[in-house]
This record gives sequence, C-alpha cells and structure tokens, in this order.
Amino acid sequence: MKDAVVGIDIGGTFTKFGIIDRLGNVLLEGSVPTDQTDDVNVYLAGLTGAVGKAINEMGNSVTIKGVGIGAPNGNYKSGSIEFAANLDWARDKVVPLVSLLQEHFKVPVAVTNDANAAALGEMIYGGAKDLKDFVLITLGTGLGSGVVVNGELLYGHNGFAGEVGHIRVVKENGRLCGCGLRGCLETYVSAPGIKRTVFELLAKYNGNSELSKYSFDQLTSEIIYHAATRGDKIALEAFQITGEILGVKLADVVHVTAPEKIFVFGGLAKSGEYILRPTRESFDKNVLTVWKGKVPIELSKLSEGNVAIMGASALIWQELNKQ
Amino acid sequence: MKDAVVGIDIGGTFTKFGIIDRLGNVLLEGSVPTDQTDDVNVYLAGLTGAVGKAINEMGNSVTIKGVGIGAPNGNYKSGSIEFAANLDWARDKVVPLVSLLQEHFKVPVAVTNDANAAALGEMIYGGAKDLKDFVLITLGTGLGSGVVVNGELLYGHNGFAGEVGHIRVVKENGRLCGCGLRGCLETYVSAPGIKRTVFELLAKYNGNSELSKYSFDQLTSEIIYHAATRGDKIALEAFQITGEILGVKLADVVHVTAPEKIFVFGGLAKSGEYILRPTRESFDKNVLTVWKGKVPIELSKLSEGNVAIMGASALIWQELNKQ
Repeated sequence: MKDAVVGIDIGGTFTKFGIIDRLGNVLLEGSVPTDQTDDVNVYLAGLTGAVGKAINEMGNSVTIKGVGIGAPNGNYKSGSIEFAANLDWARDKVVPLVSLLQEHFKVPVAVTNDANAAALGEMIYGGAKDLKDFVLITLGTGLGSGVVVNGELLYGHNGFAGEVGHIRVVKENGRLCGCGLRGCLETYVSAPGIKRTVFELLAKYNGNSELSKYSFDQLTSEIIYHAATRGDKIALEAFQITGEILGVKLADVVHVTAPEKIFVFGGLAKSGEYILRPTRESFDKNVLTVWKGKVPIELSKLSEGNVAIMGASALIWQELNKQ
Repeated sequence: MKDAVVGIDIGGTFTKFGIIDRLGNVLLEGSVPTDQTDDVNVYLAGLTGAVGKAINEMGNSVTIKGVGIGAPNGNYKSGSIEFAANLDWARDKVVPLVSLLQEHFKVPVAVTNDANAAALGEMIYGGAKDLKDFVLITLGTGLGSGVVVNGELLYGHNGFAGEVGHIRVVKENGRLCGCGLRGCLETYVSAPGIKRTVFELLAKYNGNSELSKYSFDQLTSEIIYHAATRGDKIALEAFQITGEILGVKLADVVHVTAPEKIFVFGGLAKSGEYILRPTRESFDKNVLTVWKGKVPIELSKLSEGNVAIMGASALIWQELNKQ
C-alpha cells in the first residue's frame, strides 16, 4: 500500500485528474466536463463522483494523502477560485474550492493557478530539479507565469504574484485584454496574441501569405507555426514580433527577480525556435550586462500531456512535506 | 556591556558609519571620504582605522557582534562590490569586501546594495514592521529597489534582483543610461531623470518657466520641487510625467511580486505629493482590478539622515539572528 495524491487540472472545457505517486507516476487518470453547468455544486458533484470512483478502482494499492488543484485564477492563499472569466460556475464569484473539497475527501487540499502548478511540476519532475530561482511562462490562451524564488513559489501578499501576462506593453490604444485593460502582454504574446499580430500584418502587407485564407475564428497558432516552417513571410514576421516583445518583458522580470533560467511552456511554445530565437535575442539586447547571455530561455522539460495534473500533484506533495 | 553592530553606508563621496544597538539606537557615528583614492587598500585602511577608533571610544560599553554594509552594486551573495561606476576603487573590478573586512574585524560581515539595505531598515525600524511583502524604491542619483518577499529580501540567483531602475521605459532611441542601455526607468524617474524631463519641456515650450535660468549642471530636483510649489507649469508637468512613468512601472512590479505596500525614499521622494499623486493615479490606471486602490504608495517612515547606516546594521542583525 503506497502513498498517492490526486492531481486535478481545471480547464475551461475539461477537468483532468490523476492519481499520482511520490515519484510522479500517474497511476490512473480520468476527466469530467467543466463547462456543462453554471452551478458549482453540480460541477463538484460530477468531479468528486469521478475521482471517488477512480480511488475505489485503485482498491487497497494506494492511500490518498491529499488533493492538489491547478485552476485559472486559483488563489493559493485564499484557497478559492476567484472571478475566473472562462469558468461558467466561477465567473462572477469566489468559489471556496479548498474547503468544499476538504469536507468531501477528508484530506488536505490545496489550489493554485495553472502556471504556478506547472512551475511546481517543472521543479519537482522537470528541468528545474536543481534550481532554486526560476520562472516558468505558459503561452496558451493567455500568458501565465510561475515565479520560484529560493525554492518557493512567489505568491505575494494577496496570492496573485506572477501576473506577468498583464504587464503593459503598449500604453495608449493597446489591444483590448480580457482583464479590461489595454495593451497587456498576453494580448501580444499568447496563441490568440500571435493571431492578432498576423491579422495586423495581413492588413499591412495586403495579404501575400498562405494565412490569408483563414478567418479570424479559424486561424490558430499551430497553423501559423506550420506556415512559418514553409517560409511564409508573414508567419515568420509574426514570430519575430512576438519574440521581441516577450524578450523585452522577460528582461523586465529578470531585473526584478533574477532567476537562473526561464522555461516556456504551452501551445505557442510548441513552435520551438521560431518563438525562442527572437525572444532570446531581444532579451539579451534589453537586459543589464550581468545577465546578458547568462539566463537560458528554454522549453519546459515536462511533456505536455500530464503536466497540469503533475503540477497539481506537486503542489499537494509540497504541502504535505511542510507538515 | 551590550551588543552592538557597525553599520556602514558607502556613498560616492562619503562613507558614513555608526555603532548601533539592537533597538536601532545610533550610539556613535562618523565618516571618511570615499573618493580620495582609487586604491582599495588605501580606502579600506582609512575606513577600518576610523571605525576602529570609534569602537575604542565606546570602550567597554559595547561588544561589536558584526559589520553590515550598504554599497552601490553591493552583492549579498558574492560578498563583493562589483563594477560600481561611481566608486573609483571598484569601478572596473570586483572588490571582495566581506572577506577583507572579516579578516580585519574578526566578526561576521555582510554587504548588500543601498536600496536593499534601506528596505531592511524599513522592515526593522520603519513603516514595514508588520509587513512580509513590500517594495522600497529609492529615488536619488538613480532608481534603486529592494523587494521583500515573505519577510526576506529577494536576491535572486546572482544576487542582483531588484534592478527595477533598469526596466525599459522606451524601446527605441530612449535616454542614455549609465548602464550602457537606453530608455531605462532611472533615466526618467530619479533626480537627474526629472531634470532631463524639465530640459525636454523647456525645449518644447520654448522656456516660459522660472527653471529657464538654470544650466544643466545647476538644476537639481530640489529646485524643480520649489518651482512646483510656486505653481511653475513646467515643474508641475515634469512631476506629472515622472509620476506617470513610475506608476506604470510599479504596476509591472506589482504584477510580478504582489507586495502589500510600496515605500518611496530618497532625494526626489522629498517632493512628497508632487511625485506621489501622479504615481498613484497612474498605478491604479495600469494595474489589474485585484490591486486597484489596494496597494498604498507612501513615503518611507525612516528619517533620511541615518537610514543608510541603520539599514546596513539591520542587514547584519538579520544575519546574526540566522546563526
């Protein structure tokens, strides 16, 4: 009978979960829909039912010691999901997830946001095993960040540290952001961000790209990546612009927190060197001499598939170790 | 016989020191020139001589337990002063200050940069006594910052965290900075920064200000402040512009580290509300909703006179407490 935890990753469409041992082995996994209800009790009944069934399936082979959750706007300090724009049942309110699930499962529960969970996953199972100071950036629907300082996630006073995606890039008349502000980093550097850049470039150059056949609804960062691999000039310029902006802002973050390394993760990161090369060049141009060429910017060493639930499990393993 | 430490503040012109007890009482103080030699051994002989004499004067009333130092480019992690542009004897090299002084005084010695020392002073003797997450910004010849996270100074991997003064404000053709880059925050927000803004405004409005009678060499932030108190439009606009830029960048820092409060300290901070009001307005305009109106931006609660040596003493008291 060995110790294990439940790692839960709450996404906009699906909630994935896994039963994971101390070494990071995923012993069993499953998922439930996230977006079928706007009633948090209905959602949680479905989730706890499916997780409970999975635990029963494992029988006597494991003891569940805790539950870790990564979720959009998950706040470690308050134990809640707070005003999460893409979760119907948490859009306009604060859902006290930790207390609700603790009552159900009778074991310690902890929540954090998805980028923080990924950073913990990187630290415990990935490329940051020997690092005490690093930053992980997720490039997906938005831009998230997890900042690790002296071996600990940086939460800050209100639990919302690491909102790098909302650092301002453009002061006046910038792109509209989901947060209500304009010109935030994630409106430029994210999967939708690079799409918006492609649309600006199509307007500027009057088409002249294989990307001109896609509607705004159809175009994805994956399509832009494939066009870049075939030498499409607008796709290549979009990556150049996106990387330049990211490099400047990573320099800002390094000036504040001085990490040893930066990891990049998520859908847009799959473009590899197309996004990393201009990012590194711009970073080195915009950073103080002490950091020039000295802060590697690399892809995450975690495999995309399980990272979110592994990160969530890392969160609760860390909590259990504190006890 | 009570315990005391030596706090040393190395400035470009003078090095001030004090013998300070656990409660922050300055029992004795003195100073030696910093800029009379480019030979570090000559400088240190003068400093250790003066400090030794002061310790002897105290006689048997105190036991010196350690020495704390705040210095430009002082690196806590390496124990050195590294390439400090305004110190003749450390301009082009790394001076291993901690090991040199430890050898001399035979007690623990620690060094950090001046802004970090001020942040420690604020935490132990000033307005941050009950805070675990705050930022202190020094507005003097440059813009320095000390970031405290979870009750500890944030040093980062290489000891250089908190270089907020070199976050980029302007990407292309920005003002030349002492660090060799262009458009760094401190070229806009610092005592020389606001002077440069006044000169731009004098050019733009073709004079029309009481500041038009000063040369670039003559003008100081204090003169600009006094002109503002008399309603001088260019002085007031310069404060407005300076505060707006500072507010945007403080929002960036808050997005990364989520402090509870921000303290402002140093020569330019003496302008009080002239700089703070536009800073707060700009901060609230540029920050995510969770922080709007919730992060006070205040003057430091430390008196200007002794803060640097008190901060340096706080550094070594903290080290001694760790043992």
